[in-house]
Amino acid sequence: MNADQRFKALGLVLPPPPQPIGVYKPFLQIGNQVLVSGHGTFKPDGTLIYGRIGKDLDIEEGKIAARHVGLAIISTLIDNLGSLDRIERVVKVLGMVNCVPDFEKHPYIINGCSELFAEIWGEEKGIGVRSAVGMGSLPDNIPVEIEAAFLLKA
Amino acid sequence: MNADQRFKALGLVLPPPPQPIGVYKPFLQIGNQVLVSGHGTFKPDGTLIYGRIGKDLDIEEGKIAARHVGLAIISTLIDNLGSLDRIERVVKVLGMVNCVPDFEKHPYIINGCSELFAEIWGEEKGIGVRSAVGMGSLPDNIPVEIEAAFLLKA
Amino acid sequence: MNADQRFKALGLVLPPPPQPIGVYKPFLQIGNQVLVSGHGTFKPDGTLIYGRIGKDLDIEEGKIAARHVGLAIISTLIDNLGSLDRIERVVKVLGMVNCVPDFEKHPYIINGCSELFAEIWGEEKGIGVRSAVGMGSLPDNIPVEIEAAFLLKA
Repeated sequence: MNADQRFKALGLVLPPPPQPIGVYKPFLQIGNQVLVSGHGTFKPDGTLIYGRIGKDLDIEEGKIAARHVGLAIISTLIDNLGSLDRIERVVKVLGMVNCVPDFEKHPYIINGCSELFAEIWGEEKGIGVRSAVGMGSLPDNIPVEIEAAFLLKA
Repeated sequence: MNADQRFKALGLVLPPPPQPIGVYKPFLQIGNQVLVSGHGTFKPDGTLIYGRIGKDLDIEEGKIAARHVGLAIISTLIDNLGSLDRIERVVKVLGMVNCVPDFEKHPYIINGCSELFAEIWGEEKGIGVRSAVGMGSLPDNIPVEIEAAFLLKA
Repeated sequence: MNADQRFKALGLVLPPPPQPIGVYKPFLQIGNQVLVSGHGTFKPDGTLIYGRIGKDLDIEEGKIAARHVGLAIISTLIDNLGSLDRIERVVKVLGMVNCVPDFEKHPYIINGCSELFAEIWGEEKGIGVRSAVGMGSLPDNIPVEIEAAFLLKA
């Protein structure tokens, strides 16, 4: 199966591609590299999951929220590229977690997105470098924001 | 008008190009890509705007502070490239906001920088991908720090 | 002396190359660019330095912790590239500091890593662009996390 087929087999519902809430583009292609802006925790109906992990959401809800961010990124990719199969590999993920100051499990949270990418593009090409860190705050008090870079096929 | 002419027409005063306050270069060119380090809130006289948004500065003061960061980046670009017209496009902006934990309008703050770039390079080439997020703290308690990537003309 | 010789002359002891604690790769090469994931404060025995700067660690302990992060990155580079001399230059460092909200000396902390890179690759090629900023929290309550990009020799 290719990436589109693997994604379809997961039976997941995508949110609409997020529209900019400021002066930026959600997606940019530079040569064979694709960059996506920081994406939020969009549910399939296009509304956001809100709250701080460790206060409003527990760790499992946080991981699910990160998977929703991954789905929002997938929606942006499909909207701009037409097919997930045009992507050669995941290059980089910056996972930003809105959590209480004593939270320590940021990697577990961001796995919610990274596992989705690995399911779509596989264990080798679906996994890139990553940082998963705790922010002081995030826009609209969303629990997770993720930006990412991908390489396109030649 | 080209980028230099558009910038001149704005009638803005640049701060001196910021000098490193640690072991880094403010500017690096790698092939046709230009990276600038995290820049601070420099006023035209080279001094900094200080304070946390939501505590010491309100949202409008924060947006103006982000525009000052944009001007500091422009100063670094001109110092190293000679001309803003050598830049093909804005690729990426990482906008880091020093704000109280319940602040939610980071995109509005960072627009202060992004709108400046759009005024100089236009709505298409002056706008790239972006994340706008809240930090726990910033150096010298400045309200905004921004790093950016640009593509040079061939 | 080349980079490997300079590193050997420093007489430093490397930690084992850090293993992923989530769904990511510590190292990725894309063309002539090398990216490393956010690395933590590993001591030579492979255990971590813990704590928040300004509360559990003072500024000098924080800078030493950042040097340990640099050594962890060096360990990852050697593990994947075989030799530090394959690197043409340091491109970018993102230094993330886990500190109390009123901490202001992030650049001083991250110099602990940047000075190590400058000792290995020299003042020109060992120093790239950088942001040094304060996070709300970091995984496992480590004091510093750093991700970096390098350019390989042709």
